[in-house]
Amino acid sequence: MPLLAIDLGGTKLALAVFSQQGDLLYKEKINLGKRKGAEVGRLIAASVAANLNEQRNKEEEIEAIGVSVPGIYHRDNGTVWAPNIEGWEHYPLLNEIRSVAGNIPVTIDSDRACYILGEWWKGVAQNCSDAIFVAVGTGIGAGILTGGRILRGANDIAGAIGWMALEHPFQHQYKDCGCLESSASGEGIAKMARKLVSERKNYRGSLRTKSLDTLSTPDVFKAYEKKDAVAEEALHHCVELWGMAIANLISVFNPQKIIFGGGVFGPAKKFIPRIKKEAMKWAQPVSMQYVTIETSALGADAGLYGAAYIAKQNSNM
Amino acid sequence: MPLLAIDLGGTKLALAVFSQQGDLLYKEKINLGKRKGAEVGRLIAASVAANLNEQRNKEEEIEAIGVSVPGIYHRDNGTVWAPNIEGWEHYPLLNEIRSVAGNIPVTIDSDRACYILGEWWKGVAQNCSDAIFVAVGTGIGAGILTGGRILRGANDIAGAIGWMALEHPFQHQYKDCGCLESSASGEGIAKMARKLVSERKNYRGSLRTKSLDTLSTPDVFKAYEKKDAVAEEALHHCVELWGMAIANLISVFNPQKIIFGGGVFGPAKKFIPRIKKEAMKWAQPVSMQYVTIETSALGADAGLYGAAYIAKQNSNM
Repeated sequence: MPLLAIDLGGTKLALAVFSQQGDLLYKEKINLGKRKGAEVGRLIAASVAANLNEQRNKEEEIEAIGVSVPGIYHRDNGTVWAPNIEGWEHYPLLNEIRSVAGNIPVTIDSDRACYILGEWWKGVAQNCSDAIFVAVGTGIGAGILTGGRILRGANDIAGAIGWMALEHPFQHQYKDCGCLESSASGEGIAKMARKLVSERKNYRGSLRTKSLDTLSTPDVFKAYEKKDAVAEEALHHCVELWGMAIANLISVFNPQKIIFGGGVFGPAKKFIPRIKKEAMKWAQPVSMQYVTIETSALGADAGLYGAAYIAKQNSNM
Repeated sequence: MPLLAIDLGGTKLALAVFSQQGDLLYKEKINLGKRKGAEVGRLIAASVAANLNEQRNKEEEIEAIGVSVPGIYHRDNGTVWAPNIEGWEHYPLLNEIRSVAGNIPVTIDSDRACYILGEWWKGVAQNCSDAIFVAVGTGIGAGILTGGRILRGANDIAGAIGWMALEHPFQHQYKDCGCLESSASGEGIAKMARKLVSERKNYRGSLRTKSLDTLSTPDVFKAYEKKDAVAEEALHHCVELWGMAIANLISVFNPQKIIFGGGVFGPAKKFIPRIKKEAMKWAQPVSMQYVTIETSALGADAGLYGAAYIAKQNSNM
């Protein structure tokens, strides 16, 4: 019997039906639009109900439901903290989905756990006991598999690598989101480029022509292709920080694989050889020899695969 | 029946007899002197044999033997890599000890694993599921407990935090032992002070009067007490690096405790409040709230307690 996977993001909701074997049978995406708080919860519940009905009509009842959330899932009380969804400080998502799921088991986990579980089930981390998914999107976080288990920490908030301290001494810009994330996340790249454009008075490149407020990370990647000096400087800095960050993960965890994913990888895939070269300077040399550095095999679907996997683990079968 | 614990260091060997309940009944220390390679192995085997006999004579047969080694223990083949003992690249320590142990079970683990297991059994990490022992001695390494288990990595070399990248851009001095260790280990502090003395041409403090070759880390701590400028600069830099390093561990692992130990903590104990203040600037703020930062309760005996614990775990009882 099939599995229903839900991947909630900060701006959209993805739903998919998977076979028990992990084949993606059906997928849909819904923009959250201006929804916030309980509106987002109701959207999820309504979408789940609609999908359960549709499957029932096909006489293919859903076996289990898995949900990936963009933040922290508190397993003790079934609530979610999602910083990019207004009003989701302690959102009671488990009860909300259970109210439409009937007897079908519901499992929720953080997106970072789902990413690495997805890659472990059907992506590049298959057969790994120790692998790390480095998700570089709007923010930066890591899903960490160690000794065959997900690293959770004492309060379910392990993997907050956006806060990694890499550039001594401390600068004020690190305060809100951490040193690594402030320069090398989707938001950080645009911020860094805006800062460079306003500092480099002699710079006359294409990023100067944009209004600084609208200068975006895709603009920076586009300008990089045309050898724009500010784009090169901003992304060179990112390559160094990504290299240092994974060097630290390699020295600390001695993993078999580092897997870059999220929206920025994507366009930053081409930097993998340079990131690896940077990491080699810093990491424990024996652990560095044993690790491979790759990009996600599942791309934007990594969270859905992970959600399907946690559903399968918790199914009645 | 009692447990025999052995803690091998780079310069000395400690042996202790523990009760099953974890009371330290007897302890001795032997300097390795100029011993290397198989001479060190023979010293351990002879000391084990002597202790087993002595206990037998008291009709208190040893139940199990645990050994802490200063490097990496390869569980698959019973060999040890210990960088500070000449000729110990693949030293067959398990067989050597078994040859004198008869039917008594022998367990070996790395010193960093033993440190955190010792603290977990009888020190400040009791009742913790997630705690990290940061050992700052000649080098720097971490014993990491996560979800109630020791973090080992894919090749048993996790926890190499001396290699943590904290100061961008890369400097040549990081090449041999890593960024953190090059400045903030027992060896690193002396090296840093020597560098500062030779750079600061106007410096006329007490460290100038020493021959640079013999300037040691204890000299730096002594000079610090007299407000020596070079000692203050070197140790202030250490405080910043220790703070950044534990901030990274806190953001990545979300632990309940960080425990500083090793020879340097010792004299660096007084810096814990300043290290914590530095960490607070960098770490994921929620994880920072949940963690406590302490020094080892077991001090130089942490490795012995850990060795006794792994013996107990592997006893026939």
